[in-house]
Amino acid sequence: MTTSITLAYLGPAGTFTEDAARQYRPDATLVPCPTIPAIARAVLDGSAEQGVFPIENSLQGAVTDTLDLLIHGDGLHITQEIAIPISHCLVMKQGTDLGAITTVYSHPQALGQCREYLERKFPNAEVAASLSTAAAVQQALNSPTPAAAISNRRAAELTGAEVVEEGVQDNPNNVTRFVVLAKADHAPTGRDKTSICFSFAADKPGQLYWAMGEFAQRNVNLSKIESRPTRMGLGQYYFLVDLEGHREDSVVKEALTNLGKATSLLKVFGSYPRYTLPL
Amino acid sequence: MTTSITLAYLGPAGTFTEDAARQYRPDATLVPCPTIPAIARAVLDGSAEQGVFPIENSLQGAVTDTLDLLIHGDGLHITQEIAIPISHCLVMKQGTDLGAITTVYSHPQALGQCREYLERKFPNAEVAASLSTAAAVQQALNSPTPAAAISNRRAAELTGAEVVEEGVQDNPNNVTRFVVLAKADHAPTGRDKTSICFSFAADKPGQLYWAMGEFAQRNVNLSKIESRPTRMGLGQYYFLVDLEGHREDSVVKEALTNLGKATSLLKVFGSYPRYTLPL
Repeated sequence: MTTSITLAYLGPAGTFTEDAARQYRPDATLVPCPTIPAIARAVLDGSAEQGVFPIENSLQGAVTDTLDLLIHGDGLHITQEIAIPISHCLVMKQGTDLGAITTVYSHPQALGQCREYLERKFPNAEVAASLSTAAAVQQALNSPTPAAAISNRRAAELTGAEVVEEGVQDNPNNVTRFVVLAKADHAPTGRDKTSICFSFAADKPGQLYWAMGEFAQRNVNLSKIESRPTRMGLGQYYFLVDLEGHREDSVVKEALTNLGKATSLLKVFGSYPRYTLPL
Repeated sequence: MTTSITLAYLGPAGTFTEDAARQYRPDATLVPCPTIPAIARAVLDGSAEQGVFPIENSLQGAVTDTLDLLIHGDGLHITQEIAIPISHCLVMKQGTDLGAITTVYSHPQALGQCREYLERKFPNAEVAASLSTAAAVQQALNSPTPAAAISNRRAAELTGAEVVEEGVQDNPNNVTRFVVLAKADHAPTGRDKTSICFSFAADKPGQLYWAMGEFAQRNVNLSKIESRPTRMGLGQYYFLVDLEGHREDSVVKEALTNLGKATSLLKVFGSYPRYTLPL
């Protein structure tokens, strides 16, 4: 008998975060949570083993709540990353007359991502805002007049709505990233990635360059780098870096030890297998 | 007689982008545009002299449309940046009974940014989505039952709605950035900033480190750095860098010349005065 994992995620069912959770562990028992801090609490108090968090989401941009949790929170580490291509669908109640549609519901950013499609297909329909793409499907189903929604396929399947057309976003390259957080990160696999955050006590030219040198000299490739203002004072930044390798690899370990001596803050969010988008 | 400038911005009136435009040039004639490409067209065809674009917006995250325009578009340059603190207000129709409010309207991300406040203040009210914070005020005013909206002060003033409370966002440090684009960037002022974008033909370890060395060796401070996947192929990135100085400063010029020789793409978005947030 196998015991399936319990996975908290940003609900409700039918969102893109649920898609990511289901793709990551199809066998998991999924626990929808209303907010990002609620997912973290579920993992920390043991009611879920891991949590799936959007980190760069096409509907939310950079997900500040998740970054704040990694930077300021304690006890949670990245054990996996997931990237999924976002495919928006046009969905409606079974049997609705496509030509009669007067309103299209969705989250404002999903509507924005499908603007050209909607103008072409429904030049006279009104667009109306929903709290989520999942809620949009409910609004379309409950509408007294013929209505459609923009959502993912899953939200349509959950409610018995009809998927009229798939991939209706204007830009086909729409990928969003999620991280799986747990009480411990992942053991080395030989093809790993490590996410770290650091900052310096004072802002001096060349500091970040020096820090990157610690990795460059050891041939550790950086796959992502981002500066974010700390807002604790002018000219102070957090640097968020993804590097190739595991924190237990000797070269990475050395670089992190040196970095720790020169920075006012160094936080290793975790080491985890590198993710390759399925083709 | 002074001739005031014509400024295109992301409308409608009452949005935070309008706030930014009004703060930048209180004397300007403002032209609301429905989309980011429409602002660009207005500046390029001369119907507006400059355009105000959100670039990191609290309601939209990183504004991909603006970044795409800078990276892939031609003929527009950054001539100014603006940062404004975002202050959400609770607004309602004059004379509404605060205790009777059943629905609070706003853009889903504004609702998210005020979640704790709303749960504390209106534990029993429903939250409902709007396409923008400005549209939320209209929905609250038109509601048959007592309703409120989350918006900026300006949207309330434009419609005669009452501002019940100001600064109701859960996180007080909510600042969003805008750029002003025109056909030419700004002349040197002695306290400037330059935004550039570059990428390499192939992804090799240490390239970004080398590029940063061109600036570090010349004591040119970098105030922002960000990598973004190009999505043209795996492992390919755009690097977006803000540096202190003007593209006409000799040290910046030298660094950019060297950078141009080693990169497959180098684009100077523009040089413009450094912005300091008013206290």
